Amino acid sequence: MHKIEVDAKIDVLSLNKRYAKENREFFRKNNILVINVMGAIGSGKTLLIEKTIDSLGYKIGAILGDVVCKADYDRISKHKVKAKAINTGKECHLDAHLVNHVIDEFDDVDILFIENVGNLICPVDFDLGEDIRVVMVSVTEGDDVVAKHPEIFRIADVIIINKVGLAKFVGANVEKMFNDAKDLNPKAKIIRMDLKEGIGFDEWLDLVNSYVSRHNREG
Amino acid sequence: MHKIEVDAKIDVLSLNKRYAKENREFFRKNNILVINVMGAIGSGKTLLIEKTIDSLGYKIGAILGDVVCKADYDRISKHKVKAKAINTGKECHLDAHLVNHVIDEFDDVDILFIENVGNLICPVDFDLGEDIRVVMVSVTEGDDVVAKHPEIFRIADVIIINKVGLAKFVGANVEKMFNDAKDLNPKAKIIRMDLKEGIGFDEWLDLVNSYVSRHNREG
Repeated sequence: MHKIEVDAKIDVLSLNKRYAKENREFFRKNNILVINVMGAIGSGKTLLIEKTIDSLGYKIGAILGDVVCKADYDRISKHKVKAKAINTGKECHLDAHLVNHVIDEFDDVDILFIENVGNLICPVDFDLGEDIRVVMVSVTEGDDVVAKHPEIFRIADVIIINKVGLAKFVGANVEKMFNDAKDLNPKAKIIRMDLKEGIGFDEWLDLVNSYVSRHNREG
Repeated sequence: MHKIEVDAKIDVLSLNKRYAKENREFFRKNNILVINVMGAIGSGKTLLIEKTIDSLGYKIGAILGDVVCKADYDRISKHKVKAKAINTGKECHLDAHLVNHVIDEFDDVDILFIENVGNLICPVDFDLGEDIRVVMVSVTEGDDVVAKHPEIFRIADVIIINKVGLAKFVGANVEKMFNDAKDLNPKAKIIRMDLKEGIGFDEWLDLVNSYVSRHNREG
C-alpha cells in the first residue's frame, strides 16, 4: 500500500510473479480467457462486466476486488453468474495471491473477468495471470486523466474512454484523451464508449469475441 | 504503494509520524493554516483550490501532489501564488517526508493547500502535519463511492460532494451520498457542491474563513 524500502518491494513483487505464473497455468489448463479490468472509481467497470455478461453466450465468471463491501459483487451476482468478492482491506490493488485463493471455483468458465480496485496507480505492478488488460476511464474524470497516469495506459491491451455522452456537460475533450492514449500506447485498442447510450459497446463485444476465438485457436 | 510485511509498514508509518510532527511545528511557528485536500481523480480538487485562491484575500500557497507531470501545478501557478509540485513517481499518496522537503518555501503564507494524489485509499494513513482534512468526491463517481471508501471519510473534517448539477445526468442520488457520509462521520462538515454552477462554494469560503479565525485565535 505505501512507500517501502526497496528490498521489501522486490520481495512483494517476486512473490506476486510466482503466484501470477501459477494462476496463468491454472487458466491455461482449464482454457479460460482472463480479462483484468482496471480503472478509477466510477469509471464504469462493473457496468461493463454486467452488460457483457448479458450480451454474450459464454459461461462467464467474475472476481470483484474492492477495499471494503460487496456492492459490485451484489450487482454482478444478480446476473446469475459465478462471482466472488475479494475485499483488500486497505490495499489499493488486487495481487496474484489474493486471486489465487479463489480461482479454483472458476475452473468451468469460458471467460473470467477480474475487476480490480478502483484507481489508476496501484494495480500497474501486479500481474494477476490475466490474458487481457483493460483500462477504463471516463470523461468525467477530466480530459487530462490519461496523460496524468501514463504507466497504467502503457500496460493496457484495451483502453476504454467511457461516458463520452457526458463530455459536453463536463467540458472534456474526448479526442485529446484518445490521442493521449494513442501516444502512450500505439498498440492498444482504444474505444470511445458510453455504456448508458450504447456507444462503443458493439466494438467491445466484437473485441471480446475475437479474443475468445484467438484464445481457443492458441489454447 | 503495495502490500508489505507488517514490520516494514510500522517503520514507514512511524517515520511518517516523525516528519508530520516536524511539519506541524513548522506550520505552527509560522502561523500557517494547512488544508490537506484528498479525493479521487477528477473530483475537482484543483478547481476548488483555484477558485478559493481567487476568492479570498489571504496569502495562499499550494503543494500539488501527483504521480507524474505538473498539470495541476501549471493550473495553480497561473493564479500568481506560490506553488510547488511533488511528483510521487509510482506512489499513490503524499507522505510527510515529501512535504517536509518543500515547506521552507511557504513560511510566509496564511493558508497552505496540499492537494494529495488522486485516490480514496492510500492517503488515509499519512498525516502530513495538516490542520484540516478535506475529502472531495463527485457524483459522477457513482453514488456508492462514499460507502465503498469508509476509512477516508472517517478521518475527514470536511466532506465535499461535488458536481451535484450532474446528478440527474448520471443517475446519482446525492442524498444517499450525503447520508452515507453523515453515517460514517457525524462530526464532519458535509457540503453539497457544484463548482461550475457555483453551488456550495460560499458555504466552503465561510468555512475556510472560520478555520482561519479559529486558527489565529488559538495560534
